[in-house]
Amino acid sequence: MVRKFVYGKPLETEAVLTAFEECEEELPFLLYEKHSEVSPDTDSFSLPTELGFSEKNPLFTYSMKPDDIIYGLGEAVRGINKRGWRYISFCADDPDHTESKFSLYGAHNFLMILGEVSFGLFFDFPGAVLFDIGASDYDRLFIRPSGNDLTVYVIERESPLEIVREFRNMTGRSYLPPRWAFGFQQSRWGYQSADDVRQIVQEYRNNHIPLDSVYLDIDYMTNYKDFTIDKHKFPAFPSFVTEMKKDHIRLVPIIDAGVKIEDGYDVYEEGIAGNYFCKRKDGSDFVAGVWPGITHFPDFLNKDARKWFGGLYARLLSKGIEGFWNDMNEPAIFYSEEGVKNAWDRLSAFDETSLDVEGFFQLTGIFTQLSSQPADYARFYHRVGRKNIRHDKVHNLYGYNMTRAASEAFDRYSPKKRILLFSRSSYIGMHRYGGIWTGDNHSWWSHLLLNIKMMPSLNMCGFLYSGADIGGFGSDTTQDLLLRWLAFGLFTPLMRNHSAIGTRNQECFRFGHIESFRNLINLRYRLLPFLYSEFMKAALTDSMYFRTLLFDYPQDSHAIHVEDQLLLGDSLMLAPVYEQNAVGRYVYLPEDMLLLRFLAPASSIPEGENSLSLQDGAVISTKYCTAGHHYLPVALDEVIVFLRKGHLLLLCAPAEAEELLNTEELDLVAVLDDAKQARGSFYVDDGFCKDPNLEENLVQIQLESAADGSVFVHAGNTCTYHEHVFSL
Amino acid sequence: MVRKFVYGKPLETEAVLTAFEECEEELPFLLYEKHSEVSPDTDSFSLPTELGFSEKNPLFTYSMKPDDIIYGLGEAVRGINKRGWRYISFCADDPDHTESKFSLYGAHNFLMILGEVSFGLFFDFPGAVLFDIGASDYDRLFIRPSGNDLTVYVIERESPLEIVREFRNMTGRSYLPPRWAFGFQQSRWGYQSADDVRQIVQEYRNNHIPLDSVYLDIDYMTNYKDFTIDKHKFPAFPSFVTEMKKDHIRLVPIIDAGVKIEDGYDVYEEGIAGNYFCKRKDGSDFVAGVWPGITHFPDFLNKDARKWFGGLYARLLSKGIEGFWNDMNEPAIFYSEEGVKNAWDRLSAFDETSLDVEGFFQLTGIFTQLSSQPADYARFYHRVGRKNIRHDKVHNLYGYNMTRAASEAFDRYSPKKRILLFSRSSYIGMHRYGGIWTGDNHSWWSHLLLNIKMMPSLNMCGFLYSGADIGGFGSDTTQDLLLRWLAFGLFTPLMRNHSAIGTRNQECFRFGHIESFRNLINLRYRLLPFLYSEFMKAALTDSMYFRTLLFDYPQDSHAIHVEDQLLLGDSLMLAPVYEQNAVGRYVYLPEDMLLLRFLAPASSIPEGENSLSLQDGAVISTKYCTAGHHYLPVALDEVIVFLRKGHLLLLCAPAEAEELLNTEELDLVAVLDDAKQARGSFYVDDGFCKDPNLEENLVQIQLESAADGSVFVHAGNTCTYHEHVFSL
Repeated sequence: MVRKFVYGKPLETEAVLTAFEECEEELPFLLYEKHSEVSPDTDSFSLPTELGFSEKNPLFTYSMKPDDIIYGLGEAVRGINKRGWRYISFCADDPDHTESKFSLYGAHNFLMILGEVSFGLFFDFPGAVLFDIGASDYDRLFIRPSGNDLTVYVIERESPLEIVREFRNMTGRSYLPPRWAFGFQQSRWGYQSADDVRQIVQEYRNNHIPLDSVYLDIDYMTNYKDFTIDKHKFPAFPSFVTEMKKDHIRLVPIIDAGVKIEDGYDVYEEGIAGNYFCKRKDGSDFVAGVWPGITHFPDFLNKDARKWFGGLYARLLSKGIEGFWNDMNEPAIFYSEEGVKNAWDRLSAFDETSLDVEGFFQLTGIFTQLSSQPADYARFYHRVGRKNIRHDKVHNLYGYNMTRAASEAFDRYSPKKRILLFSRSSYIGMHRYGGIWTGDNHSWWSHLLLNIKMMPSLNMCGFLYSGADIGGFGSDTTQDLLLRWLAFGLFTPLMRNHSAIGTRNQECFRFGHIESFRNLINLRYRLLPFLYSEFMKAALTDSMYFRTLLFDYPQDSHAIHVEDQLLLGDSLMLAPVYEQNAVGRYVYLPEDMLLLRFLAPASSIPEGENSLSLQDGAVISTKYCTAGHHYLPVALDEVIVFLRKGHLLLLCAPAEAEELLNTEELDLVAVLDDAKQARGSFYVDDGFCKDPNLEENLVQIQLESAADGSVFVHAGNTCTYHEHVFSL
Repeated sequence: MVRKFVYGKPLETEAVLTAFEECEEELPFLLYEKHSEVSPDTDSFSLPTELGFSEKNPLFTYSMKPDDIIYGLGEAVRGINKRGWRYISFCADDPDHTESKFSLYGAHNFLMILGEVSFGLFFDFPGAVLFDIGASDYDRLFIRPSGNDLTVYVIERESPLEIVREFRNMTGRSYLPPRWAFGFQQSRWGYQSADDVRQIVQEYRNNHIPLDSVYLDIDYMTNYKDFTIDKHKFPAFPSFVTEMKKDHIRLVPIIDAGVKIEDGYDVYEEGIAGNYFCKRKDGSDFVAGVWPGITHFPDFLNKDARKWFGGLYARLLSKGIEGFWNDMNEPAIFYSEEGVKNAWDRLSAFDETSLDVEGFFQLTGIFTQLSSQPADYARFYHRVGRKNIRHDKVHNLYGYNMTRAASEAFDRYSPKKRILLFSRSSYIGMHRYGGIWTGDNHSWWSHLLLNIKMMPSLNMCGFLYSGADIGGFGSDTTQDLLLRWLAFGLFTPLMRNHSAIGTRNQECFRFGHIESFRNLINLRYRLLPFLYSEFMKAALTDSMYFRTLLFDYPQDSHAIHVEDQLLLGDSLMLAPVYEQNAVGRYVYLPEDMLLLRFLAPASSIPEGENSLSLQDGAVISTKYCTAGHHYLPVALDEVIVFLRKGHLLLLCAPAEAEELLNTEELDLVAVLDDAKQARGSFYVDDGFCKDPNLEENLVQIQLESAADGSVFVHAGNTCTYHEHVFSL
């Protein structure tokens, strides 16, 4: 059951597709106060008034029980259980995702309260929202929107799994990427030229490490002008695209939100002529400094502006480009004209000869506080219908609508073929148009763990095609961090290694022990058809690709607290290693499972494990593990995975690109259940069709064991299966 | 065996007290190169030339085996096993201790390579030293001092434990604090006045949460002038000190390194008259902006300056103060005169009207890059004997010698009574003069874990009296973080709750559930005589109060990798919980142990555990745990501890201050070994004597079980023991 509660006159965000009737009754579960005093208990845990919060805001309060677990919020810091911190939905360009930050790039206002009473909540409000989940007051959950007009949905279903499915159903089907986007992707800010890219590709190919894609960060453009290509760096771009595609490499260029102000630059001039940019109150176009220097922001909340800007992607589509990433679309602002003027005014008050400590701190603040200022977000407007809406009131919809603009254009320009698209900033609803990457993380072990923990939260909100920068964007990575991160990242749909200018180069061939890297990437390619299948099944059934154990084992009093193990699809459980210098880890098995250990080549089978040879001769080891707690060794170059009873895993032989994979010959690893059966469904399509039919594309596979122990495999296709069947 | 290798003409740091002969032979284990090319492999993992590193430096290289474990470096980021990162000894005022930082406040150049070949290393070099431990090259350890003149000690002994004892023996006995310094301490930057302090004390006393000390941060001074007291904020200071002491509260004021430049300020004028300040090359006194505004830095490497500055502490000693903390002594520099002038010059090149992105980043950098600049550390000199030594060459000795100055003064002014003293910045050798606190951490769960991991590393280097800001200094804490941090912090010798101005107030009475806080602090007081005893035994035998399992179980192939469990003294093992929302944790027992669970009052005994009543009626639960892996629930308000076979634990009844503890009546919890015996030694002294005799102060306690099962306790004192004896 979904109930919709409307307060005031909320703006239509189009997050929710289903039309619900508005409830007249009182909001259940939560205490609603139209206005509320700022709690005096918090005593310096102060309310960020600069984001528009005040005592005039409504406040929603829930009294949590000690055992309540709170899931949700998608892209956020900390754990899967969000208890114990304060989160603010206000899309932020912040490259330092430490524990005490309130905001990241996405605004995902979905929560699930799980306990004796369980329900889901969606706060459909496009401005800043504060979620204080046991931070100010250990026992209470406060939700404070920064305005009075909002819609609250309350979702009650029979299980946490069904609450999520209901939420996904009402917000629409998740974005489907093309299958090639499941290949391994290499990126860096920034490869400067076609030759740089060729060199990267050559190193991967020479070392036989599979690769499907190289990303173009901002340097490919002419002076950072969207939809241009720098002719010196990339002469003859369309033939370069073709050259790369012949080597099974797709280039994915970045598109930033800000349009460079430059006379003669056609995009700028079209934007001016069409009134497509966000304006100040006085009607002039707002000016923000970003990478290109001074820019205007397209008014993505305006339908005409969306159509215009989206149409520009065709300039690259026509050059053979099949994928894009949208960046800086919170939108990020380095400085505004107003901000710079204020800064200079403040600066003039200082005198070199009489600097004191207070002055020093003020001086430092003048320039560090210029970027992405709340004050700037209140300086420009969107034209929606006949209304001018101030940006800060709808801030969280900006990146969402930029990505929507692109996606809607792709429907026009590429009606039959999926185009890769993901964004940095997002709101619920954008999950229909594109995926996300989790932005500028660091080469920190804690960020590998954050990657792991964010995945199920993103899946709850519909962002299935997602991933983090593997190896870490900022700071310098190390070989061991990259290996462990790849060992987890090879399971994430968006599998991309990305790093920042000035940091250590972190392509897989840069370190010694290349065979370890090759082995890990190969494993991704062995798994690719299977992971793609699990992804499509989840997307087409409004389910989750990644889930916590809580969803499948809600009665298991230990499983419900586990945050560092993930279920993937129907059959797998992951237990990644995320601590530096760890030689293994603890794993909790909620039921008997089969351990699969993907060894480094030439490694010996660990004691107590059995060897299994795959079709290409690669050896893995297996072991039956009973329900309960285990400590397992996991070497730096190994990957462990658990296969659930009654389920199966399919592996193909690796190849150096997605297109080269042979999905007609598969290893089939199956674990028979207590009834001596195993089953699974394998989704196969052409990899690019826009509106796939789930049923038509599913191959059902069933294994049964006869009395004499022989096993029959029934499969709905003509694939060759190498069977490896286990009984627990 | 200790071998000393001298290169060039090293400065005498006085870190090592034992006089060793210089070895003529070649350095064992490591490859020494007088000059070395910067490794081309690292490719953007660049050498910080601004700290003086270059190809002209010598390079020491060790080829690590895959299984080698590298311990050491004391106060540093990351884990106890230092493999996988790059660390730079260069005392730094950095308040954001994230994983990718190279330097913290201390310079502790001690390493232990542990593997098939095991040995210890001490790089006695007072300038910057780079330790690249498998970061650039996964298999190699590089050590690069930023100069040619250094002493390297190689320590070979029969076990890791003996390597540490040898190192501690040659560097001298650890600082001994007074016993009251083991009480719980409350601090904040900043309590503004005597009334603020009274209010804090009152809240603790009213809530019956024990407290022994309140700290005075920089605001107690008159305009941040060292050794002054602001008369308005603290009228009649000596009687205020007395008033507090009557309530069993000792005040601990901060002393900062920089002396305010102010005519009429006697400390400033004495410093000028005596030529006690660090000078520029041209002979003028160097000027640095810190809290007081512009300051001079006392030349702590100069004997006369040390004597003068140390003597100033007497002004506060004579007012009844018995403890100090030395801060900002890296030394921290907010800005120098030269730096400000350069900044202004750079600023003048900018024009408000033509700011572009590159300019924006440069502008921001002008002011953020002013603080603690390497260039500033090369602008002033120390006068040592007849030499003028440039500060950056001896940078790491500054905080050490400030603390030495205070300690030597205490020997003069307080010859019979220990004075509490600890410092932010340190070098090996300073451990003889004072303890350390780990500086400006954050209210992050990862910093609770960093606190846990840093303790054994600090203990290896002799910094036994140490601790972190419990609850976290920067950012905002939450109730659950504070509870879990106190649950670990109650075992650390320096147990202090400290937080920064502008952050959430985090005294223990600020949150609900006050009884949980009371219970944890009470537990510290129950343990205090025992923890003090373990501390003194460790300090007086050159041993470690906190150790990893590796030291005691070097043959246990799992134990040697454990980083989140600590041995405390002879008898205890700690397994703290450090993850938000965790309901328990995994524990590895290298041998059978007795679990002691200190419950919250009114909690029920968990299933499978047995209840034990202490002398004051408090109930704890116990359980025999076999060697191996366990998962144990640990509620938010509980503390678990393990007692080793054949050992004992002593607990007194809690009181609200250290002075009020009754150590004549103790609970004695003992676990008999396989020979049905248990023993321990209990150190008792007056709590303040300067040169205690270990043997004279040890009470030997022995338990033996007779054939009929009765247990005899033999103890060398007249204490009353309530015996709780267990057989495993």
